[in-house]
Parts: sequence; C-alpha cells; structure tokens
Amino acid sequence: MKLGTLAGDGRDGRLVVVSRDLAWCADARHIAPTLQAALDDWDRVAPLLESLSVDLAHEAIPMMRFHERQALSPLPRAYQWADGSAYVNHVELVRRARGAELPESFWTDPLMYQGASDGFLAPRAAIPLADEAWGCDLEAEVAVVTGDVPAGASRDEALGAIRLVGLVNDVSLRNLIPAELAKGFGFVQSKPASALSPVLVTPDELGDWWQDGKLHRTLKVDLNGAPLGRADAGEDMTFDFGTLVAHLAKTRDVAAGSVVGSGTVSNRDADGGPGRPVQDGGLGYSCLAEQRMIETIRSGAPVTPFLKKGDTVRIWMDDDHGHPIFGTIEQTVG
Amino acid sequence: MKLGTLAGDGRDGRLVVVSRDLAWCADARHIAPTLQAALDDWDRVAPLLESLSVDLAHEAIPMMRFHERQALSPLPRAYQWADGSAYVNHVELVRRARGAELPESFWTDPLMYQGASDGFLAPRAAIPLADEAWGCDLEAEVAVVTGDVPAGASRDEALGAIRLVGLVNDVSLRNLIPAELAKGFGFVQSKPASALSPVLVTPDELGDWWQDGKLHRTLKVDLNGAPLGRADAGEDMTFDFGTLVAHLAKTRDVAAGSVVGSGTVSNRDADGGPGRPVQDGGLGYSCLAEQRMIETIRSGAPVTPFLKKGDTVRIWMDDDHGHPIFGTIEQTVG
Repeated sequence: MKLGTLAGDGRDGRLVVVSRDLAWCADARHIAPTLQAALDDWDRVAPLLESLSVDLAHEAIPMMRFHERQALSPLPRAYQWADGSAYVNHVELVRRARGAELPESFWTDPLMYQGASDGFLAPRAAIPLADEAWGCDLEAEVAVVTGDVPAGASRDEALGAIRLVGLVNDVSLRNLIPAELAKGFGFVQSKPASALSPVLVTPDELGDWWQDGKLHRTLKVDLNGAPLGRADAGEDMTFDFGTLVAHLAKTRDVAAGSVVGSGTVSNRDADGGPGRPVQDGGLGYSCLAEQRMIETIRSGAPVTPFLKKGDTVRIWMDDDHGHPIFGTIEQTVG
Repeated sequence: MKLGTLAGDGRDGRLVVVSRDLAWCADARHIAPTLQAALDDWDRVAPLLESLSVDLAHEAIPMMRFHERQALSPLPRAYQWADGSAYVNHVELVRRARGAELPESFWTDPLMYQGASDGFLAPRAAIPLADEAWGCDLEAEVAVVTGDVPAGASRDEALGAIRLVGLVNDVSLRNLIPAELAKGFGFVQSKPASALSPVLVTPDELGDWWQDGKLHRTLKVDLNGAPLGRADAGEDMTFDFGTLVAHLAKTRDVAAGSVVGSGTVSNRDADGGPGRPVQDGGLGYSCLAEQRMIETIRSGAPVTPFLKKGDTVRIWMDDDHGHPIFGTIEQTVG
C-alpha cells in the first residue's frame, strides 16, 4: 500500500491511503490520525490500512483526488533521520573532488550521520536558500522508515523492521561541509531540511524491485527539465538497508518512525570508472557535486554551478508503465 | 513553572504540572495531552499551564504525589537533540587526553552535533550497556527546549525562543568515539540514548540564576555516592544558549520541542589550569573522561575506569534550600 499525508489540524497533518496510480486517496484518520501514530502501533494498524487500501482500489469507499502538490511530507517531522553513504562510489568521488583520500574501512564500515528530522519539506515546497554562496546541492536518495528496532539487532532483524520505502532529496550546502567535516562532529549547518517523496510505500508493494534490502530501479533526477541522473539504485549499493539500520542500532534502540537514508545514489560507469553525464550516454549523477568532480578531472575545474534561485529539481522513480511509484519530488530553489 | 511527564496511553506519556518542591503534581491533559503538544502551541497553552501551576501551589485543585522514580523523560522522544560543546575547557581537556590539538576556531565557532532524539531514557532508568569495552561515560549538562526558531535567527531571537531549561546525562561510549570522529560524520554509535531530568522548568522560574542564556548554579554529580563534580554551569561557558540555538538555526528552521545541550559542564581551576578532583578541594568533573585526562597528566595513565555494570550516577542542581530544582537524574549501569 501507499501512504501519504495531507494538511490537517496539527503539525503532523492527517494520514491518507493513496491508490497505486496516485490519483485517489482515502481518509485513514479513523484508523490512525497520522503516519507516526500508525508506525507507533503498526502491527495492529497496518492490516486495517491494508484493508482500506483494497477498498480504495475497488472504489468501495468514499475517495478524494490525491494531488501531489497538496501533499505534505508523509512524515512532516520525525523522531530520527539518519543518513548512510551506501554508494561508496559517490563518497569516493566527492572526496576526490575535495582532494581527500578514501579510507579503506569505508568499504566495510558504513558512513552515517544523524540529520535534522524536526521538519521535512513538503515534496513540492521550495528549497529555502538564504545565500547562494553556501553552494546548495541536491542529493537524490532512497530512504526507508523503520518500526522499532532493538539495540544490537542483526542485519536480518533490521531488514525485517523496515515498514516503508520512499525517496528523499537530502539538500546539502557544499561550501559549508568542509569546515564541519574538519570538526568531526558531523553536519549541522551544512544539511538543512530534506524533502521526502509524496508517498511512502510498503516493501510488498515493490515486488521484485525490493530485494535483499535494495531497491532495484532507476532513480530519475532532472535539473531544470534536463536529465541529470538515471542511476540504478540497486547497483553499486555497498551496504543494503538492513546493514544500514543495524549499524544505526548497534548501541541503542531505534524507535518506530526513524527515517534511514541510502546516501546519494551513484553508479560507476560500465568500464568501472566514474559515470558519464546522461547527455554523453552515461547514467549521470544524483547530485551536482559528482558532476562537478568529473568536470574537474576532465578540465581541471568544475563547470556546473551549484543550485541558484529559480532552479528546479525533480526526483522520481517510474514503474513499468512510466508512472512514478512514490510520486515526484519537485522543488524550486527559493 | 515546572513540567513533567508520567506514563500515559501512548509513547509520549501525559503532561503534569509539578509543584516547586517536586512533591505534588496536577494532571494537565485538559490543557495539552503531552509536553510536545504544549510546545507545539505554546503561546496559547503556556498561560493556561501557568494558571494551573498557581492553583497547584495554592492547593486549589486535585493533586497527586509526584514521584521522580515514576516519571518518564519530560520528552520521552523529541524531534531534535542537538548538543553543543559550550565549555571549551572540557573540549580542550578531552582532546588533550586523545593527543589531539584544539583548533583556535573552537573558541569562536561552536562545536555541535546532531544526536539521537527518538528515545530519551527516563531519569531513573538504567543505562543499557551491552559491552563495558565500549568505555561508557556520563556527561552532565544543562539543556534547553526551544519553541519555533526561524532560520537565520539572531542570538537574541534564539534566546527569546527558549521555553524550558533542564539537565541531561549525555551518555557517551568513549572507546567508540575516536573512530567515528575520524570519519567526520559525527556520533552515531558512540552516543546512545540520553536522559533528561525529571522536570523541565521555565526560565522565569529560575530567577537570577538564569542570566544571558547561562544557568548560574552548581551542577552536582555523584558517582557511586561520592562527589565527582561540583562545577558552576554559569562559569567558563564560552557560548551561551542563545548563541548555541542561533548556531543550530543558521541555515534552517528549528522546530518547537528541539532540545539543545550545553555539552559537558566544566570549570577551570582557580589558577586557570585544569580542575582538581572534589576530594582534593577542586570542583571536580562532570564526566569521567576529564578525570582520566588529569590522571594521565599527573601519572602518565588514567586510573579511574569508565562506568561498569552496577555503577550509579547522580546528577542534580540544588536551590538555596538544598532541594533539587530539576529533580535528580539517578541511573545505574545495567
């Protein structure tokens, strides 16, 4: 099933079940007022929501049009946002662009940072940017939402605790990152609010695309209407989501409603080297930093600028019929 | 006024107003079901809670005994926990103990990390520790809870958005920290769940002790019944809470209910050097890492071990009559 959130009485909006084609939705407040409330009581609530989803598919209940532009973030705020760097190819390229080496351990020990979860941008909300000099970048990622995961959970246990899957734009302020990385304390100012996709979906909804904690599907990213990225999220993912969630839970309980990100999706080129732009027949990039790095390798300096006011980013993933599975994140820098 | 949370129907418990002496409390659910709900709507709710607090003081309403051992964390979970390192003296000592230098910028640019907020331990709950080799330490700190703070807020605006003040034990796994610091992505596994004090109080309740965004009062820390720390939280605090909250809000909105910590409270000795143990006439330490560092300076190696199973930590702050203002955090390692 697919779940979304529309504006409601409070800060957490109201829960709706959304049809597979994202055209219709049904109010789910009689089952759980908000998505967080559903996640808090998932074992009891999920079968009721599934039943509502079936009724919606059969047009057997009152339904409303679902407009992505009216959707809030499925979780307008969450108790945790932890973002991994599962595509180590991306980490290596970004480090190389900074002139920093990649420690060998990064291939075996996941990088992960604790991010801000007190407010997720709506999927069509502007990206607030007070200063273009901060070097604003998108990062297109896959994300999962967990149930309760006890401390010390195994990779398999963690994988079994994944309740929902979606996409995220992890907005990054590149020019603020080096100074924060040097302090070692992670990202506070360089990672402002992120945006989740209009809907989150249960793993069973994804069928064979969801295998072994990876989402085997092309993540599509456009910048100002032109293709920027077409990477396969199931390829070159060094750490699957079970491994990422277990990493987070190594020393502490992880509570229901925690959002865990994959890090920027990134594919190597067919020859094993860094990917080429979509315009050159490659799979492109899920963030501008990677493109700028390739340009630096080729010509000694980056050509592509970071995001400017008025730039528009689109992030989505199509099903076999060309319909976005999770809806579309579409944000203009404002 | 003083606010606490008792066990209720859901994960967030139920809000109570607590008497100044922490002996009594009154159910506040008819005003706001939970502390987060109160913070979400503070301008409307706070005067009603204040009125209830006055009625409680006058014994004009039904009241119950308040038992700290039954209290949940005032915020059993929060949407944000960001912990500064305002006592740069502490940072310098801990770095020296690791053989790392303190960059000069640390005196002007606050260190802050995004921590886990999906579950705060109850103030009398055991500290879960699966492996003593992780090097479990306490960190006694002051913390504030904010209202909504818009991105780019000034220090004064941020200071004005502080709704509540309390104490926190920021549990740290010292032996996991160096590897995470080296990765630059902050603390994920080395900072498990923290504990807040039994009650949080409004700044006005603190009178002259709360000045310029600092809490001028002795933070008391005992380990296994013996004094470990007696540092003045108002001294040697390089960055006040207004500055810390403004740092957090530089590039993004900070949502109501965000918890911001001071970092480990730490005083220099009267001669400007590192502090001496309480047993030697000094003000002691608010964490074991500092004590171990002093021992290393004196004798070449640390003597005090990190926390072992069965060790008990107490953290509190007395008023002029020797009554804990925020109640007492008392945790046994389990």
